[in-house]
Amino acid sequence: MSKIFNVGVIGAGRIGKIHIENLIHHIPGIKLKIISDININDELTQWVNQLGIPKLTDDATDIFKDPDINAVIIASSTDTHAKFIQKAAQAKKHIFCEKPLDTNVKRIKETIAITRKENVSLMIGFNRRFDKNFRRLYEVINSGQIGKPHIVKITSRDPAPPPIEYIKISGGIFIDMSIHDWDMARFLANSEVEEVYANGAVLINPDIGKAGDIDTAVAVLKFKNEALGIIDNSRQAVYGYDQRAEVFGSKGCVIADNRPSNTIEIYTNEHIRKDKIPYFFLERYRNSYINELIFFFDCLKKNIDPSPNGEDGLQSILIAKAAQKSYNDNRPVKISEIDQ
Amino acid sequence: MSKIFNVGVIGAGRIGKIHIENLIHHIPGIKLKIISDININDELTQWVNQLGIPKLTDDATDIFKDPDINAVIIASSTDTHAKFIQKAAQAKKHIFCEKPLDTNVKRIKETIAITRKENVSLMIGFNRRFDKNFRRLYEVINSGQIGKPHIVKITSRDPAPPPIEYIKISGGIFIDMSIHDWDMARFLANSEVEEVYANGAVLINPDIGKAGDIDTAVAVLKFKNEALGIIDNSRQAVYGYDQRAEVFGSKGCVIADNRPSNTIEIYTNEHIRKDKIPYFFLERYRNSYINELIFFFDCLKKNIDPSPNGEDGLQSILIAKAAQKSYNDNRPVKISEIDQ
Amino acid sequence: MSKIFNVGVIGAGRIGKIHIENLIHHIPGIKLKIISDININDELTQWVNQLGIPKLTDDATDIFKDPDINAVIIASSTDTHAKFIQKAAQAKKHIFCEKPLDTNVKRIKETIAITRKENVSLMIGFNRRFDKNFRRLYEVINSGQIGKPHIVKITSRDPAPPPIEYIKISGGIFIDMSIHDWDMARFLANSEVEEVYANGAVLINPDIGKAGDIDTAVAVLKFKNEALGIIDNSRQAVYGYDQRAEVFGSKGCVIADNRPSNTIEIYTNEHIRKDKIPYFFLERYRNSYINELIFFFDCLKKNIDPSPNGEDGLQSILIAKAAQKSYNDNRPVKISEIDQ
Amino acid sequence: MSKIFNVGVIGAGRIGKIHIENLIHHIPGIKLKIISDININDELTQWVNQLGIPKLTDDATDIFKDPDINAVIIASSTDTHAKFIQKAAQAKKHIFCEKPLDTNVKRIKETIAITRKENVSLMIGFNRRFDKNFRRLYEVINSGQIGKPHIVKITSRDPAPPPIEYIKISGGIFIDMSIHDWDMARFLANSEVEEVYANGAVLINPDIGKAGDIDTAVAVLKFKNEALGIIDNSRQAVYGYDQRAEVFGSKGCVIADNRPSNTIEIYTNEHIRKDKIPYFFLERYRNSYINELIFFFDCLKKNIDPSPNGEDGLQSILIAKAAQKSYNDNRPVKISEIDQ
Repeated sequence: MSKIFNVGVIGAGRIGKIHIENLIHHIPGIKLKIISDININDELTQWVNQLGIPKLTDDATDIFKDPDINAVIIASSTDTHAKFIQKAAQAKKHIFCEKPLDTNVKRIKETIAITRKENVSLMIGFNRRFDKNFRRLYEVINSGQIGKPHIVKITSRDPAPPPIEYIKISGGIFIDMSIHDWDMARFLANSEVEEVYANGAVLINPDIGKAGDIDTAVAVLKFKNEALGIIDNSRQAVYGYDQRAEVFGSKGCVIADNRPSNTIEIYTNEHIRKDKIPYFFLERYRNSYINELIFFFDCLKKNIDPSPNGEDGLQSILIAKAAQKSYNDNRPVKISEIDQ
Repeated sequence: MSKIFNVGVIGAGRIGKIHIENLIHHIPGIKLKIISDININDELTQWVNQLGIPKLTDDATDIFKDPDINAVIIASSTDTHAKFIQKAAQAKKHIFCEKPLDTNVKRIKETIAITRKENVSLMIGFNRRFDKNFRRLYEVINSGQIGKPHIVKITSRDPAPPPIEYIKISGGIFIDMSIHDWDMARFLANSEVEEVYANGAVLINPDIGKAGDIDTAVAVLKFKNEALGIIDNSRQAVYGYDQRAEVFGSKGCVIADNRPSNTIEIYTNEHIRKDKIPYFFLERYRNSYINELIFFFDCLKKNIDPSPNGEDGLQSILIAKAAQKSYNDNRPVKISEIDQ
Repeated sequence: MSKIFNVGVIGAGRIGKIHIENLIHHIPGIKLKIISDININDELTQWVNQLGIPKLTDDATDIFKDPDINAVIIASSTDTHAKFIQKAAQAKKHIFCEKPLDTNVKRIKETIAITRKENVSLMIGFNRRFDKNFRRLYEVINSGQIGKPHIVKITSRDPAPPPIEYIKISGGIFIDMSIHDWDMARFLANSEVEEVYANGAVLINPDIGKAGDIDTAVAVLKFKNEALGIIDNSRQAVYGYDQRAEVFGSKGCVIADNRPSNTIEIYTNEHIRKDKIPYFFLERYRNSYINELIFFFDCLKKNIDPSPNGEDGLQSILIAKAAQKSYNDNRPVKISEIDQ
Repeated sequence: MSKIFNVGVIGAGRIGKIHIENLIHHIPGIKLKIISDININDELTQWVNQLGIPKLTDDATDIFKDPDINAVIIASSTDTHAKFIQKAAQAKKHIFCEKPLDTNVKRIKETIAITRKENVSLMIGFNRRFDKNFRRLYEVINSGQIGKPHIVKITSRDPAPPPIEYIKISGGIFIDMSIHDWDMARFLANSEVEEVYANGAVLINPDIGKAGDIDTAVAVLKFKNEALGIIDNSRQAVYGYDQRAEVFGSKGCVIADNRPSNTIEIYTNEHIRKDKIPYFFLERYRNSYINELIFFFDCLKKNIDPSPNGEDGLQSILIAKAAQKSYNDNRPVKISEIDQ
């Protein structure tokens, strides 16, 4: 008696295409009926046709209006997320939305309220929670093997900065890049954040500074359960996408190191060498994008509320804003200062 | 101007199903038209239908007769390989055949001769060559980074022995289990084997001994390029599927360790622990099955002879037979004693 | 024409005994003439005799008065360091003094001034700089292999907290425990610290809180060269003495992991396990105590000023005090606020 | 009531000097009274004086005649071992003798018989048994954690071949180099060897072949407990002294990897690299030389027979000779063929 889910996807850009391919090849029991994208061109049309998807539209309303569709994947630009979530909710469709939910706290809260009122599920695409390594980290912590968490450490460094034009509209490193880390920290500490201290510098490209942003950042989190968090970010790790986490607790410590590209070690008369780690998120987190959708539809089938949800989307934005304020004011900032 | 390949698959057992799913989800530019299997039941029919494959038959001849089909994947039982290769070749279809090609040297040679006469490609499914770790090992060796190979070491241990009934018809450990290692050794040493010495014991289950086989084996290979090879096999590594290789050369050494299940390390007051390695071949080598088919069709598209080919299938059997003779006679045996 | 150094050691407690044994067994070209300790008992007398050291006294003045002695090792309690350094300097003896130099900034400065005036060498026992792993880290950074340092990360966790009675007089975690980390951070960043933010909690033992201290701490450092530092400390890592450092830079990253106790990995049907890391500093840093003395005497022989010196001793205390003030006031604190 | 041991050392060459320094600096409760060496020169005299050793002689008889001396360390050339062991035994002194005991089976047996008759202890310097990693391997095996041993694997590769002149008198690779591995294999398998198969090649330097030896060797051992052993040796691993061992058993597997030179990993935009492993035995096995002497004197104090003993010395030579014969005859050779 397994339900079939008819799915619409809003947004067929880079991340949208990943979701679309995963839906087709890796998610059993669903049917992808409509893709909507505001920029339809021949290439996209051909791509959608080859995949055998029945309909491509430039109007997301087609998805909301289709009574057969019961789940929507939102992968359009961030500024459209809240609007589409609200419309999808009002059309009684369950929603998987890319992160961040939105950057405006008030709008996020309104949006969550609407999904609750309409009684639809809302899951936010914090895909790193579905990386098998970080998932296992979480399991180990929750099994009690390392006791009560005392220190949560996250290292998250991109291989190269985005274009300056992107930096200018990105919302700043604490929202654009660290957003995953705020979520991961909450996930691993199993607690909300109470206070943030953030510092940073422009060490990679002075143009990033001129654009009003920083390229290197560190933050200290104080969690409500008294654990402490430390996060470091860089826009440019020349050796690849550096993604590590560690939780130290009363009974031990658990560490998730970078995923190696392969298992080879080469011994020469100069040194011992290994191949570099995966270069960026598509290589590093490929499976997490599949896993999060499997989980989403699994929750829908079982009538369970999926997680991370809207509240998780909200908290990560609150922390990001507190971090930005901390950096601006050079003082620790409480989440309650932001969440008023 | 990319050719489209219409494909038929013979045999929809465990390994056949893996190939079928990979063809559908991971091999672009091909069309899977017919599946043949001698045991058609409702479950198989439904599975084939759900995948949208046009035809399921219990007669492989349907594949050979279909003029549109230009490539055949043979995943039926070993005793049918030679027959189906020959028929496929005579029907002018390119062939990917599961290992071992056959266990009879004369029949293997005849079969290869027919594929040559009919001018079709024949690739043998030594999938481990397409594991990214062993592939990288091979690349490192061939790039000259470790110089001339002196010692090739392979460890290959299964997690648990097959049923005794299987053991009885398996052809013995040197054919059934070590076959991959003979091929890997040749692949890594970049040389043919000249002589084999094999020893072994019944250490895991006396019933394996009663069935006329051994469950633990070691072998020394002497290659034509004077390199030496050492291989160890066990039917039962309780900690998982142990698959390692190492090549030591005049300028260095390259080692492919087991693939870790994840990157987690847990530090406790007892010890530091990691999760077990992948349990068996489906977990360990999943991607290699995709990669070998990608490579096969890529060769067909480019009109290149794929490899490993029939000759590779022949050599691995010659070594297996020499190893068995060596064990029986307790003396090193030359390949030329077998290949007459 | 190698100079012979006649050496006196002040303080034969735990760390003093380590230095004495190292002087006898591992430092060539020196002669240990006098040991002074305020608590002489039979056991100590016998121990000194067995080692063949000519004289044991309860009056350090005997060392200063001895005209043959040209180098003094000070391993007495912290509150006596400044006094003994000053007296040794006035007696024209070179000085190796355990860390911390002192806890009073003014007294440290006066003491350094006297050593300069008397033109004697003063080295401070920040032994971790002489651990082969951290030394290699430093070499890699200074060779330019990872470019300009951007982020310095230090993890330093003790296996178990000291007795509460010790905590009470320890000066607090930022002086007592983190002192090594402030020095290491400066050493690895190759820059002075400009500002510190510290946070912490009582997570291990409430009695530590009652004693006015914390047991878990994190800190962010802002260096004058704009690099950022992050440090985490715990009084209780149940899995052993966790000592790691990492420097991330414009051209790469270098990581010093914990020293393994041995190279063994055990694969079982439960997991893969390794033995715990060394339990505490005597195991972890044994050789660093030898190396620092070798370096000290080597500098004396070559008439080079040894390092870390008095200035290094001063800076680490300034940072410690800034960290304590930061924790007390919950705000970042500039070193210049302390160093007035 | 701890006994004091008065010790004489025969042979002050490279290995003799290591033992002498270790006796002085690391072995408590002993007194080194006499050194004998057939080549006394000024340098040696000065070295002995500086260490404060009372007597240097060119006549080992001085050691045997000294009634105070109760333990003798023999580190002279191999051809003198048997003679000196016999004389020491007849003088009622306990004996620690460097490996190999001798190369003549009959003479080894006579020598052991004399030590038994005179009731003195005889320990052979198979130092690798006292390397902390291999010792831990042994402990893990003997604790039953990996069950019954099935496969013992040893990799032992020197960094560079010795001079050709040395090769000519070395007795061949199976005695000169593999001797440690035969002993280690027996130690780890906890069983005697029944049969050996050895193969090899001249791959490094043709002059080694002209000198009648090989430079690359592999061997398969059949133990009496039915376990199998595989060993690979090379005279030239350009990346350093490669010393690994692994034991696979019914309940798991334990692996001792090479000791890393330090814990540093460097991540660059080219690769991840580590420093090379220790270059040769003095770096790799330094502590094992201390540990074996501590163990020797500890056994003497406790009136326990030390191990490895004369029988271990005999067995390793029997295996070496069987391996040589196997290589010469190209067939497996039973130990019983040698031990007649």
